[in-house]
Amino acid sequence: MMRFSTLMKKPADWMSGDVHQTPVVLTSRVRLARNVTDSPFPGWAKKRERQLVFGAIRGELEALGVMKDGFSHELSELETVQKQVLVERHLISREQAARSEGSGAVVNRKQSLSVMINEEDHLRIQAIRPGLELQEAFELSQSVNRGLESKVDFAVDGTLGYLTACPTNLGTGMRASAMLHLPGLVLSDLINQVLKGVNKMGLAVRGIYGEGTESLGNLYQISNQSTLGESEEEILERLSKVIGDVAVYEQQAREKMAKEDGILLKDRVGRAAGVLGNAYVMTSKEALNHLSMIRLGATQGMVPESMVAVCDRLVMESQPAHLQWNSGKKIEPEERDVLRAQMIREHLQSSFPAAIDDIDQSL
Amino acid sequence: MMRFSTLMKKPADWMSGDVHQTPVVLTSRVRLARNVTDSPFPGWAKKRERQLVFGAIRGELEALGVMKDGFSHELSELETVQKQVLVERHLISREQAARSEGSGAVVNRKQSLSVMINEEDHLRIQAIRPGLELQEAFELSQSVNRGLESKVDFAVDGTLGYLTACPTNLGTGMRASAMLHLPGLVLSDLINQVLKGVNKMGLAVRGIYGEGTESLGNLYQISNQSTLGESEEEILERLSKVIGDVAVYEQQAREKMAKEDGILLKDRVGRAAGVLGNAYVMTSKEALNHLSMIRLGATQGMVPESMVAVCDRLVMESQPAHLQWNSGKKIEPEERDVLRAQMIREHLQSSFPAAIDDIDQSL
Repeated sequence: MMRFSTLMKKPADWMSGDVHQTPVVLTSRVRLARNVTDSPFPGWAKKRERQLVFGAIRGELEALGVMKDGFSHELSELETVQKQVLVERHLISREQAARSEGSGAVVNRKQSLSVMINEEDHLRIQAIRPGLELQEAFELSQSVNRGLESKVDFAVDGTLGYLTACPTNLGTGMRASAMLHLPGLVLSDLINQVLKGVNKMGLAVRGIYGEGTESLGNLYQISNQSTLGESEEEILERLSKVIGDVAVYEQQAREKMAKEDGILLKDRVGRAAGVLGNAYVMTSKEALNHLSMIRLGATQGMVPESMVAVCDRLVMESQPAHLQWNSGKKIEPEERDVLRAQMIREHLQSSFPAAIDDIDQSL
Repeated sequence: MMRFSTLMKKPADWMSGDVHQTPVVLTSRVRLARNVTDSPFPGWAKKRERQLVFGAIRGELEALGVMKDGFSHELSELETVQKQVLVERHLISREQAARSEGSGAVVNRKQSLSVMINEEDHLRIQAIRPGLELQEAFELSQSVNRGLESKVDFAVDGTLGYLTACPTNLGTGMRASAMLHLPGLVLSDLINQVLKGVNKMGLAVRGIYGEGTESLGNLYQISNQSTLGESEEEILERLSKVIGDVAVYEQQAREKMAKEDGILLKDRVGRAAGVLGNAYVMTSKEALNHLSMIRLGATQGMVPESMVAVCDRLVMESQPAHLQWNSGKKIEPEERDVLRAQMIREHLQSSFPAAIDDIDQSL
């Protein structure tokens, strides 16, 4: 079985850090909700019933080839900070982290597949792929679904489809989404117009890491709203089409900015690099926004492409629980801002002299 | 005679760039107002009268040993940008730059002595020294005054002293001032309290480069208000005492900050360095404020001392007329912000890798 410390050291395989593979669409994600027939939904089940379902499903999951030697834990076995790390890695949900006995997660070694047991539904099978690969993510999640189907009786209605604890997931039980980096649309003030268009297509869109409609690091998630009345293929096709269009708008906005406001764009990227490499106190909000500019700079040839992997990893590791776990001790919020700045500085100072030279040569 | 281009290339001798000599008091300046007996004050004189006074005094000044091979021009011989450069170097006043025939300046090679002819008075003899050296600056200005006294009849009243165009200069005709760098008092929110105290001592204080009470780069000028009823020695002694006290308060504020808020201070200094070294568009206001932080960092051992000379020179050369003259062409204000950022970046990138390492080792 994979140890927690091994999981911490290894970035997930979908964190490609390749700016050509993921210039705009960072990740594609598919999540399938499934329930077994012989037990109440987790929210209504007694502790003993949850434990029985957890034990049975965990055993079947661990036996699947695709989940071999993965990470597998009941949440009650984990410390609070470990659960928060799993949330920050998108491997479990915030809601799942709050649950205890009879609730847990099984994650494959590549961290591309994660199954939550007894979250809102008995099973939430999640697959993540880098770039715009919704179909591939769906197939990956299906590999777990199919592996379990022969061993477990899933609750299915002949007309409706898969039954779920909440009716918003009824039918396919599928939520597909992509995480997009949209600094070009944000800086060009086109973002609201584009997001409104996405909404009109019947898709949901929200800022990531922000509260309400605020977005940090210019990151947005687009996902399907309805799970009923369309096949998985139809949903994925429509979603891929819209996300692909948004990515094109974003690329156009970047090119326009680089062409018409090149020096201002360079200024933003340079300042972000300068502050990240030299600050001694930094909130996670500020870090995310500066890292967003470096990633943008890399796609426009202003920063070496090798910086993208560094930045993507810093976005993950500058989050509170990651910082706390890596520090090996309990830290106060103010101390966290100092540690975050230190970690970012150390990573960037080894990588940035080249970056700064590069910017200069392109003057 | 010294050419304008030579003056541009040479920093003045009072720009020591030595942080031990000038940790708080950057420069001391003494200015003597004098008028000759046989001509009306410049504001009332006809052009022909001004030209006669100008010719006579200029000749006497150029003949003085201390002004040998200096810079000497009637202002009408200079381009607008050249006059602006002299203002930015504190060699002539903004008012003087607006005057034309019969008005001019003679500056010694070291740029430590500058005499304006036909500004508000027939003569304004100005001496600048680095650090808190008001007495030395006074003696330097006296060397010119004495040299002229034997050749020219100065207008003196037996009771009042030297006669001047404006009664606020009557008596000694002396205005002595020091330029202080007070980031510690500003960041500790003690500045208004200290400045109020200085005012109560009958001294004038104002922010440099700012409009009204605003100060840019945390630079303040303290000077005597009255020129009558006290001897030069009494004025200089009182002024030196008060300025010395303010410098002590500033040093105490810096030490307290470094001790109690060391990481925040480092953060400010580091961010300033990061932005100066990596921005592509920068106003002179922003540049002054960041350069102020680098100078502060150097006095607290956070930045190599060699950076002080670089920063002091950048404060001078990032001013609009200096930028324009050095670019060799007419430039628009937006272009100026780009050129300024470029000049600063080029100077700091060759100096800063060491600086950043230095900050890190002291963590």
